[in-house]
Amino acid sequence: MKIDVLSLFPEMFEGVLHSSIMKKAQEQQAASFKVTDFRDYSTNKHKKVDDYPYGGGAGMVLKPEPLFAAVEAVTKTSSSKPRVILMCPQGERFTQKKAEELAKEQHLVFICGHYEGYDERIREHLVTDEISLGDFVLTGGEVASMAIIDSVVRLLPDVLGNNQSAVHDSFSTGILEHPQYTRPATFNGLEVPPVLLSGNHAEIEKWREEQAFLRTAQRRPELLQEAPLTDHQKELYQQWIQKRD
Amino acid sequence: MKIDVLSLFPEMFEGVLHSSIMKKAQEQQAASFKVTDFRDYSTNKHKKVDDYPYGGGAGMVLKPEPLFAAVEAVTKTSSSKPRVILMCPQGERFTQKKAEELAKEQHLVFICGHYEGYDERIREHLVTDEISLGDFVLTGGEVASMAIIDSVVRLLPDVLGNNQSAVHDSFSTGILEHPQYTRPATFNGLEVPPVLLSGNHAEIEKWREEQAFLRTAQRRPELLQEAPLTDHQKELYQQWIQKRD
Repeated sequence: MKIDVLSLFPEMFEGVLHSSIMKKAQEQQAASFKVTDFRDYSTNKHKKVDDYPYGGGAGMVLKPEPLFAAVEAVTKTSSSKPRVILMCPQGERFTQKKAEELAKEQHLVFICGHYEGYDERIREHLVTDEISLGDFVLTGGEVASMAIIDSVVRLLPDVLGNNQSAVHDSFSTGILEHPQYTRPATFNGLEVPPVLLSGNHAEIEKWREEQAFLRTAQRRPELLQEAPLTDHQKELYQQWIQKRD
Repeated sequence: MKIDVLSLFPEMFEGVLHSSIMKKAQEQQAASFKVTDFRDYSTNKHKKVDDYPYGGGAGMVLKPEPLFAAVEAVTKTSSSKPRVILMCPQGERFTQKKAEELAKEQHLVFICGHYEGYDERIREHLVTDEISLGDFVLTGGEVASMAIIDSVVRLLPDVLGNNQSAVHDSFSTGILEHPQYTRPATFNGLEVPPVLLSGNHAEIEKWREEQAFLRTAQRRPELLQEAPLTDHQKELYQQWIQKRD
């Protein structure tokens, strides 16, 4: 997968794109990254990329020319049609399903604004996807695009090792994970639940199903309606519904 | 504000914590950042920070000792009680409201796991907040904590200049922003809506209110129920409700 990022702050990507899974993905040639400063595509002699909004108002607006030219430059050698992704608060909320969809693509281009708005012609005629991480405000699209790149790249074949397999992810069962404990069995007077030390695998499994159910009921009850519950969890669900009513 | 990050990949933070708003926040002494590799607090001679889960199963679990010791080390000089934030998919969904709440604190400590689960005693007895960016899976908490740090630090006094004022943020009006346009008036045959070039400020304002309403109705209709709409938008809302029914 080829990933291009268009940003006015390319230095922000240094750490993240060269560590951990991103580093591994590049070494294994599963993904390649290129960060382009789209100021280089300004047609203005002062290298301006933004301007005042038509109709007045506070804030600046990113001009169409530099971004159209930058996208053209990074996609002209592409054999497949790239997804051009705009990071913005008005966009579609990012989910694991969207990560899985993007992981099937050959080429992703991320457009990261910083402070400014985007000229509407960029939204309407250049981008294929507008994505938001959630209902909070970031200084720019840079960190948001890092999050999306991370969640997509780790799904590519051969990027995660067996120990970090995507199969055991949160959300892979549809509900939240059960609590985990490791050594020491007692730490600062805090003990591991005895059942986990019992060696009784049927009891351990039962406890984990209960705990996963309880945690989900407490924190994310809406997930219970659609999740594929085990038989034991279905019983717990019936009890929980009755108690709640 | 003092911000500590505990991570096994401190190099990931290089770019983001030294650019743009983060750089400015440090220069203006509005915020100071320190990233600590919590492997330094391992009591194990091989510097291990994780171990197999009690009760069996795939994946590794972060041990309690290194994280308890690292939090103690970074908080012992704190005059106020810090918020200790765990980045994890089971946590509370991050929102702008949470950013505003955290922006009032003196000291934030972020715990970033990577691949592994957390020993439950960390959740129960060390952290004050478990936060998730959304329903998608990241390789680790690093990029998620960068997003939260960005959204919090930009709210601190004197960090944003007038042009980038937090007052004009998305979500500050409760609905999505109207489209923005800037020069040129015609680009690749694509024209700016004539009203914006008319100089008629009342008409421009009316157009913007309509456009903000329409975009929100199309993309995020649930926001319309709680947003403080203008009189013109209230009329549009009534029409829209009637049409929909």
